[in-house]
Amino acid sequence: MAEDSESGAAPVPPAAAGKTPSVSSLVEVTLESKVAYDGVFIQVVRDRVRCADDHVAVREYIRHPGAVLIVAMPDDQTVLLERQYRYALRRSFVEMPAGKLEPGEDPLACAQRELLEETGYTAARWDRLGAFHNAIGYSDEQIAVYLARDLRFVGASSTEPGEVLQVFTAPWRELLQWTTSGVVTDVKTIVGAHWLERFFARGAAPSAGADARAGPSQGLPGGSAS
Amino acid sequence: MAEDSESGAAPVPPAAAGKTPSVSSLVEVTLESKVAYDGVFIQVVRDRVRCADDHVAVREYIRHPGAVLIVAMPDDQTVLLERQYRYALRRSFVEMPAGKLEPGEDPLACAQRELLEETGYTAARWDRLGAFHNAIGYSDEQIAVYLARDLRFVGASSTEPGEVLQVFTAPWRELLQWTTSGVVTDVKTIVGAHWLERFFARGAAPSAGADARAGPSQGLPGGSAS
Repeated sequence: MAEDSESGAAPVPPAAAGKTPSVSSLVEVTLESKVAYDGVFIQVVRDRVRCADDHVAVREYIRHPGAVLIVAMPDDQTVLLERQYRYALRRSFVEMPAGKLEPGEDPLACAQRELLEETGYTAARWDRLGAFHNAIGYSDEQIAVYLARDLRFVGASSTEPGEVLQVFTAPWRELLQWTTSGVVTDVKTIVGAHWLERFFARGAAPSAGADARAGPSQGLPGGSAS
Repeated sequence: MAEDSESGAAPVPPAAAGKTPSVSSLVEVTLESKVAYDGVFIQVVRDRVRCADDHVAVREYIRHPGAVLIVAMPDDQTVLLERQYRYALRRSFVEMPAGKLEPGEDPLACAQRELLEETGYTAARWDRLGAFHNAIGYSDEQIAVYLARDLRFVGASSTEPGEVLQVFTAPWRELLQWTTSGVVTDVKTIVGAHWLERFFARGAAPSAGADARAGPSQGLPGGSAS
């Protein structure tokens, strides 16, 4: 695909329609880097950078190990959900099972571990639905999304002290409605439900979504998926 | 809707299917609160809390003013997009116009300001598509999503020094494919494209999506939408 280059936020010339512009003029160069805050869970990096317009700016962001989201289906109509209190917002949220990568952990292994720890289920069938970045302005977090099927309940879950959650199930089509009606506002769960719908739509009409990725081995052209 | 209560991550009893459990047993109580890091852009709050299981834990999170995303359509087939370098991930991203709320700023006013600053466009017609939380584990950020139509280019944009971005357009159906093929991994843009599709689907078949919200005056049942 041919690409047009623009600098600054110029008006949109007709030639740029449908094309993503080139990126060479956007790169920011690190001049100085340090860990400005090293907390219990959060590490903040504060760098000085030279921007594409030669302006020298400060860039601050959270260093995050990455995370996984599990769309877990006990049967082909139903998804496993959790309600968990999220202190930053002082209220509970309806979410899909999810968790952070341990150092060096493979995302699929993380998804299998988190599903078992949080819900007590294992799954015999895993598909990778994709990956996304949830806060590109101030975090390097990437969330990989897996579909887990052929579930088996193998015993009590093993959450950590302070990690209290309520597991329940819902029809996935109802969840999909919750993501547009405001019942579910957690973005990873919104995307999980949306990608599940696409996954099923593709199965019903394969030619309609040939570009969408599925399967654990497929890469992520636009992302730095691990 | 009747709700069942569970404590811990118990197996899913049939009675819980399709119901969201009650929340009283999940609440975390603040014991101590402080700003642990006050940076240039990022403020980290570090609190000690008593969890629902009586465990005393540390909770750290980013205090964020909130943000807006603008799905801006120069015509009914096309969306305005930007390519911007995101230092946290050391690469550029395809995104919809977006920005942070100024202190006390109304989200719609913020959306109108950001659209003009970043792209040079005003819009005569605004609809609120919803709002979501993008990092409930470590940020109180909420992103409100607006659809902007009847656009008019009124002059050069006015981004700040260091804010370099390339504006371009794409057919919204192509954008939708990009959000599942990995070309677009920015979550706010994924959700914006998805909610735009729902908005249009509802217009074509109003009965199918009566629960989905639209219009600037409608509230957000599950969120703390401002």
